[in-house]
Amino acid sequence: MDLNRYNNIEYIAFDADDTLWENEMFFRRAEQEFYELISPFAEEATAKSVLFDTEVRHLNDYGYGITSFMLSMVEVAISLSKHQISANDIQKIIKIGQNLLNHPLVLMNGVESVINRYTQSDYQLFLITKGTLQEQERKINLSGLKHHFKHIEIVREKTESVYRKIFKKYNVEPECFVMVGNSLKSDILPVLDSGGKAIYIPHNQTWLHETVSEELLNSYTFDTLNHISQLETLLSTKLN
Amino acid sequence: MDLNRYNNIEYIAFDADDTLWENEMFFRRAEQEFYELISPFAEEATAKSVLFDTEVRHLNDYGYGITSFMLSMVEVAISLSKHQISANDIQKIIKIGQNLLNHPLVLMNGVESVINRYTQSDYQLFLITKGTLQEQERKINLSGLKHHFKHIEIVREKTESVYRKIFKKYNVEPECFVMVGNSLKSDILPVLDSGGKAIYIPHNQTWLHETVSEELLNSYTFDTLNHISQLETLLSTKLN
Repeated sequence: MDLNRYNNIEYIAFDADDTLWENEMFFRRAEQEFYELISPFAEEATAKSVLFDTEVRHLNDYGYGITSFMLSMVEVAISLSKHQISANDIQKIIKIGQNLLNHPLVLMNGVESVINRYTQSDYQLFLITKGTLQEQERKINLSGLKHHFKHIEIVREKTESVYRKIFKKYNVEPECFVMVGNSLKSDILPVLDSGGKAIYIPHNQTWLHETVSEELLNSYTFDTLNHISQLETLLSTKLN
Repeated sequence: MDLNRYNNIEYIAFDADDTLWENEMFFRRAEQEFYELISPFAEEATAKSVLFDTEVRHLNDYGYGITSFMLSMVEVAISLSKHQISANDIQKIIKIGQNLLNHPLVLMNGVESVINRYTQSDYQLFLITKGTLQEQERKINLSGLKHHFKHIEIVREKTESVYRKIFKKYNVEPECFVMVGNSLKSDILPVLDSGGKAIYIPHNQTWLHETVSEELLNSYTFDTLNHISQLETLLSTKLN
């Protein structure tokens, strides 16, 4: 372990969904309701696989987020039912999505105290999240954490070039920047590629689309934490 | 007319949809296809009015943009058909939306040359547009104008507080800022309220939700142009 890795950190950026607050668990529940609803037409395993493919196919035109998920569910229901699904059932699918849009904001344990302590430090805090503007803003507002962040960026994708643009926009030296998040694909690898640092905090539910191969991982160096409350120890150990 | 109104302008911000490129005309065509499709169940006037109400009701949870429009069309079709609409027709509605998502980018006449000339000036150009990230980014990329803008902001709503945040973020003195756009509600009134200046270029197709009452308008002062190519004359007349 490189003891000096975090010596010059000035900016700590946090991912939001499944790093600061729960997100995937609400999607998993909604998917489960959907699988039950279309069970007369398809096994869960089939529905799951077709839904995943449909969502990924539409990321580019529909974007991330719940409205995209709703449109994908409707499309999958029509196709798996061979056009037999009723308007009634489609209305139920839309209702599943609407409930998801209003899911409660559940902060992960320890988040409040970590963010609070860093606000009183010299670090500048960023929130960098991807998804739709209205869904992300709703959660940021509900979290009660908004005022702790110097800059909030809601982006369409978290790629190396997106991180580089953020660095440029806020005059950030990449080596003074650390990103904290649960997605290897969005929070860790692209930040390391752009010259920044990254700390990985895995979440027990992560969308398949956010995973990366072991092989790809081998060429990267980063710290992994079990819990966000360990962040302070990791960063200050390195500071001493 | 106040001859000095634009003397101290340093920043020119442009709205995108229906100011730089066509947008509403593609929605109008898509709506027309939708009205035809559900004509067995409802008159056009009824469908139009119910669709509008449904879209506005969902702006807060679905946001602006085409995915939101698609979900509203599906909901309206189910309700106006009293749950009799077929899966086949719902698939056609989704197809209407998917075609809309891929509509060609049609720049308004004169836009290219105006933006080009301002790039070679001392003004800093902003693009401030509302909508979904993926739809707006797609159009910005297709426009070929992206590199002309110093800052691009895609926001969920254009309110006074959103403009104030942009001013703060980029260290902009409001009185040195002018917004150019086709929506009184989003581009003109909130900018004037925030202490900036605004130039209104009406478009012959503007969504009903973007209109404001004559009465409200009376308390505001701003210039109106017939065409974006008149912008240079307006600004430089004032500069001399």
